[in-house]
Amino acid sequence: MPIRIAVDTMGGDLGPDVIVRGAIQYLLDKTSDGTELIFVGPRETIESILTDIKAPDDRTSVENADDVIAMDASPTDGIRKKGASLVVAHRLVKDGKADAVVSTGNTGAVLASAMFNLGRIEGVSRPALASHFPTSNKKPCLVLDVGANSHCRVDHLLEFAYMGSIYFSQIMNVPHPRVALLSIGEEASKGNDLTVEAHRRLSSSSLNFIGNVEGRDLLSGKSDVIVCDGFVGNIILKFAESIRGFLYGKIKRQISSNPFSRLGAILMGPFLRRIHKTFDYSQYGGVPLLGTNGITIVCHGSSNALAVMNAIRVANDAVAKEINKHINDQLSSLRPVGQSARETGSE
Amino acid sequence: MPIRIAVDTMGGDLGPDVIVRGAIQYLLDKTSDGTELIFVGPRETIESILTDIKAPDDRTSVENADDVIAMDASPTDGIRKKGASLVVAHRLVKDGKADAVVSTGNTGAVLASAMFNLGRIEGVSRPALASHFPTSNKKPCLVLDVGANSHCRVDHLLEFAYMGSIYFSQIMNVPHPRVALLSIGEEASKGNDLTVEAHRRLSSSSLNFIGNVEGRDLLSGKSDVIVCDGFVGNIILKFAESIRGFLYGKIKRQISSNPFSRLGAILMGPFLRRIHKTFDYSQYGGVPLLGTNGITIVCHGSSNALAVMNAIRVANDAVAKEINKHINDQLSSLRPVGQSARETGSE
Repeated sequence: MPIRIAVDTMGGDLGPDVIVRGAIQYLLDKTSDGTELIFVGPRETIESILTDIKAPDDRTSVENADDVIAMDASPTDGIRKKGASLVVAHRLVKDGKADAVVSTGNTGAVLASAMFNLGRIEGVSRPALASHFPTSNKKPCLVLDVGANSHCRVDHLLEFAYMGSIYFSQIMNVPHPRVALLSIGEEASKGNDLTVEAHRRLSSSSLNFIGNVEGRDLLSGKSDVIVCDGFVGNIILKFAESIRGFLYGKIKRQISSNPFSRLGAILMGPFLRRIHKTFDYSQYGGVPLLGTNGITIVCHGSSNALAVMNAIRVANDAVAKEINKHINDQLSSLRPVGQSARETGSE
Repeated sequence: MPIRIAVDTMGGDLGPDVIVRGAIQYLLDKTSDGTELIFVGPRETIESILTDIKAPDDRTSVENADDVIAMDASPTDGIRKKGASLVVAHRLVKDGKADAVVSTGNTGAVLASAMFNLGRIEGVSRPALASHFPTSNKKPCLVLDVGANSHCRVDHLLEFAYMGSIYFSQIMNVPHPRVALLSIGEEASKGNDLTVEAHRRLSSSSLNFIGNVEGRDLLSGKSDVIVCDGFVGNIILKFAESIRGFLYGKIKRQISSNPFSRLGAILMGPFLRRIHKTFDYSQYGGVPLLGTNGITIVCHGSSNALAVMNAIRVANDAVAKEINKHINDQLSSLRPVGQSARETGSE
C-alpha cells in the first residue's frame, strides 16, 4: 500500500510552481519508492507544471480545488471555504484517500482545518506543533508546542510530553527519549504555576523525564524532547530562526569591507555553509502537527522547493512510522477506563 | 559629590580577587573620574588584593562583612544573614553611604535583598531585570523583565514598559524609545490573555508603543525596548547567552579538523572576535534591577573581571543619569491622585 501525501499547492508566498517542483524533487530520491503525491489546487495550472518538469505520471495525481485561503484570513472564516485547496486536502485524508497533508498556507487556518476536518486522536485534548532545534550533538531536539496553543494547562503539557516522546522515539529510533520541561531553573520549585505542577506530574509519569531545563539547554543536546506552552515555544522558535539572518548580515558586511575576511570566508566556506544549514528551517522542512486523526505538516509561507521537499519527507516518515497509531495506543491507555477523550480532555 | 558604588566581593564563582581586579580596572578608565568604590567583604582579604594591585587609596574603601550567601541558599534565608556582604552592601545604599550595589551573588538573594533593604519606588509594584540584546543596528535593545517575576499581570508589564523606556532613553540618549510587546503575532489580538490586554493598555499609554513584536524581532533592531513577563524573558535571555558557546563549539571542531578552515579563521579573526563579543554577556556587564530605591546591578555568578568592570560602568551610568528619579517622577504621575503605590500595585 503506497503512502499518499496530499500537497496543498496554494497559500504559499512563492506560488504553486515552487511547491510542485519541491514535492517532485522528493520523488526523485530513491528512498521515496512507494510514495505517491496528490497535488491539490487549480488542475490546469498544476498539470502544466507537472508536464513541464516531466513528473512521473504513475506516482502523481491532481485533485482540483479552485479556492485559496488568504494569508490574512481568519482561520475560522478560511475553513468555511469548502473549495479551498487546504480544506480539500484534509477531506482527502478524512475520506481515506490520502494519509497526510503538507501545506505552506496560513498556519492558523491549517490548524483549524486539521482540527475541524480530522478531529483529535482519542486522549488528546490539544494537538501541538513540534519543531526540531539544532543541538551540539548530532541529533536535533524536538520542542513542543511551538505555537498551536497560546494558553496551556498542565494536562496539555503532559500530552505534549507523551506525543513528543513517541514522535522522537519513532522518527529518531531512540527507545526512551529524554524528556525535559522548559523553565527558568532546574529545581522542581522554579518556574510558574504551570511548570511547577507539570514538573510534579511528569515526574510521576512513565516517561523518561529528566527534569527542568533552561533556555541555555535548547541547543545543548541535554534532552531529546523539550515541552513548553505554545506562547513560549513560538517565541523561541522564531528567535532561533532569526539567528541565521542576523549572523549572515554581519558576515556580509564584514566581507564587503575587508579583503582578508573575504579570503577567510572562502577558506571557511564549508564550515560557514554548515552553520547556515544548522539554523535554516528549510532543512527541517516543516513542523508536524501532533494529535489529530491524520498527519499534517505545517510549512512556512515562504517555503522554498528544498523546504517543501523536506516537508514531504517528514510527512512520509510520520506515516511510515505510524506515529498516530502509537499516540493513540499510548494516550488511550492513560485514560481511566470508561472515560472518553472528551471527558478527560480540558477545553 | 562622587558616585559611590558598593561592590559585593563575595558570592561570585571566581572569588573576590577577580571581582576586585575587575572593579579597579574601571577606575583606570579616565571617564571614571568622580567614582568611588566601596568593597564589601572580608577586610583582610580585600585589603591584601588592593595592596597587591596598587589600587588608588583615595577612591577605594573597604566595608567589612564576613558572611556570604551560598549560591544554593533560599533567597529569604539568605537575606536574614545581617553580616552577609550582599546585605551589608544594600544597607550602605539604604543608609545613604553608597549610591549603587554591584553583585555577582545568587540572583534570587540579590533581588530579595534589594526589595527588603531598599524597598520599591513609589508607583512600582514589581521591580524588573532589564537586559541588553544585540541587534542588527548599532544600538542594542533592552528586554525586560528577564527573570525577576515569573508571574506577571498587566499592570506589571505596563510598569516594565515605562521603566524600560526611561532607562533606555536616559542611557542611550534616545528621546522617545520605541517600545514593543513580545508576543506571537503582530496583530493586537494575537498572544495570550496577558499580552492582549497589555497591548490595549500600552496603546493608550503615553509611551511610543509600536505594537507587538515576535521572537524574530529580538535581534532585528525594530524596537528599542521589548516588554515581556519574566518567565519568557529569562528563557530567551539564557537561550541568547548560549548561542556564543554553540557557535564556537562548532568552529573549534572545524578548525581542529581542517587546515583550510584554520587559515580561514585566522584571516577572519577580527570578524569572529566581533561575533564572539556580540553574544558575550560580559560585554554588557550585568543587568540593572529597575524599580527599587537604589541602583542594583545583577551579574552572572561566573562573571570575569571584564564583566565586573562593565557592571560597574552600568551602575555608574544609572546613578549619573538619575534613573530612579526619572522612574519616580514618571510613575508617580501615572497614579490616580491620593493613591499610594501600595494601593495601585498588585501583589
